[in-house]
Amino acid sequence: MSKPTLLMIVSPKWKGLTEATLDNAEVVLEGRDAYAPGDIDYVMSFTPPPGKIASLPNVKAAFCLGAGVDGFLCDPDYPRQVPLVRFVDRTLSAEMAQYVLMHVLIQHRRQRFFDAAQRDGRWRQQTLLRRTEDTRIGFLGFGEIGSFAARHLIDLGFDVAAFSRSTKQMPGLTSFAGDDALPAFLARTDILICLMALTRKTAGILNAKTFAALPQGAFVINVARGGHLVEADLIAALDSGHLSGAVLDVFQEEPLPAASPLWHHANVTITPHIAAVSQTGVVLKYVHDGIAAFERGERPANIVDVDAAY
Amino acid sequence: MSKPTLLMIVSPKWKGLTEATLDNAEVVLEGRDAYAPGDIDYVMSFTPPPGKIASLPNVKAAFCLGAGVDGFLCDPDYPRQVPLVRFVDRTLSAEMAQYVLMHVLIQHRRQRFFDAAQRDGRWRQQTLLRRTEDTRIGFLGFGEIGSFAARHLIDLGFDVAAFSRSTKQMPGLTSFAGDDALPAFLARTDILICLMALTRKTAGILNAKTFAALPQGAFVINVARGGHLVEADLIAALDSGHLSGAVLDVFQEEPLPAASPLWHHANVTITPHIAAVSQTGVVLKYVHDGIAAFERGERPANIVDVDAAY
Repeated sequence: MSKPTLLMIVSPKWKGLTEATLDNAEVVLEGRDAYAPGDIDYVMSFTPPPGKIASLPNVKAAFCLGAGVDGFLCDPDYPRQVPLVRFVDRTLSAEMAQYVLMHVLIQHRRQRFFDAAQRDGRWRQQTLLRRTEDTRIGFLGFGEIGSFAARHLIDLGFDVAAFSRSTKQMPGLTSFAGDDALPAFLARTDILICLMALTRKTAGILNAKTFAALPQGAFVINVARGGHLVEADLIAALDSGHLSGAVLDVFQEEPLPAASPLWHHANVTITPHIAAVSQTGVVLKYVHDGIAAFERGERPANIVDVDAAY
Repeated sequence: MSKPTLLMIVSPKWKGLTEATLDNAEVVLEGRDAYAPGDIDYVMSFTPPPGKIASLPNVKAAFCLGAGVDGFLCDPDYPRQVPLVRFVDRTLSAEMAQYVLMHVLIQHRRQRFFDAAQRDGRWRQQTLLRRTEDTRIGFLGFGEIGSFAARHLIDLGFDVAAFSRSTKQMPGLTSFAGDDALPAFLARTDILICLMALTRKTAGILNAKTFAALPQGAFVINVARGGHLVEADLIAALDSGHLSGAVLDVFQEEPLPAASPLWHHANVTITPHIAAVSQTGVVLKYVHDGIAAFERGERPANIVDVDAAY
């Protein structure tokens, strides 16, 4: 029996992937190799071109190379009967959690203030912004990564809550579930961390109304997708002083255009979509093992609920 | 029976303490209240003047307001028969752990690089300095605070070791015990965190020889006492490029003098001894409960081994 064929649709810059082979599939690289659409059994990508998956009549499954599958589901023609698998990996979750912890702590512990004092050569002692137990962290979206970061923040003494579709259980966590709970969740959140999947429903959720529902001086960290944030609303909320600052790893347009006012806005930290980077070897193993499962007639873990979109 | 008398020797700036009363002791404030040395039953301080405790003939115990008791034990006349109690508090340990985690993550995740890229308005993607599992953290000294921080770092995926007098048990931790193990511990440490008690034996332990034993490019965090660090040796090791950077919260002289070259040295982060700040209410409860224990004829927790000096 011949091996199945895997279509790889990735940036040619990601050499580790584009030069890889798998022992249980023939790899065909979009843009380099010729192929007949009917020969493709599996596809792997972050962001396939719209209509691409629908053009493959015999595709059995699609593998998304990240935890967020919006790059697939923003395609209106995505064939709903094709299982879509997302990449969930402990290392990736740990690295994203590291990013979240670091930026919560930089804000909580006033590290930017101490950096400025050092530049001035001044010994300026300051207490924490608030006592740790009075500092209310709120996770907007609470999957693998949020749970990971929340466990640490709870143990470090913070007051941690999560907003999600269904009620979450974790020692020390306050769970807010369902749309009706959103205002109460926001009203008690000093540091808001967006980790939602990007869907039609969550697009633009970081907007003027959401910011207004946060307490005065709140701080926002967006580590999900640029499409969650209405950038102009963020700038307005910062300029009015209602929000004290923001950390952004993702943007509506990436790379963030040089002309964006976010680059040099006071109290905004910009990082270039590096909160978590999928490791080539781990990605290849995930695709390999996923293909093996489908070929055995099984379903691998982390198949997306296409209707919920995550 | 009359209440025992507590002598408070603290900075007049710490109003929360100097204006406090206790329901189980009369409080006498050094420098404000007159008292007869023979009337003092207990004393509380960070750094009593040398000879002071020895001048109190009836003192039953001394309470140190921090976790490090070097402020007492640097007094050659400290009466060894007087129990010395140190302040161990979960909030204090958690805050110190926060500081350690934050600075490990800033280094590991190249946040200073991204800050510089942002100032230049440049989208510069970079991977982590090393993979997390290949990043070797080493705790020099491993008590409450080190254990707290190490648990988090292990869970976040780092390769964590500790150097201490006796072997330490913690899932995922590599323990190096005893002086003979120091070179091997240093040779495998990319990020060294000093959390030792300051004693005659550990004074100056962060010196040229120690730095030379670390691998090329190692990073040093000193959150213990300024007396651990030979500042000139640190500067030489940074200038030679052997060390990649340092974070210092404590200094030989505090406030750090304006003329110190550390203020503006590339790759050195200075914070003004704020890694953990004892909370007034918690400190008062600790002294209150300690006095109550001694008055009942018991010994409170965290009595210092004066010979070991911690």
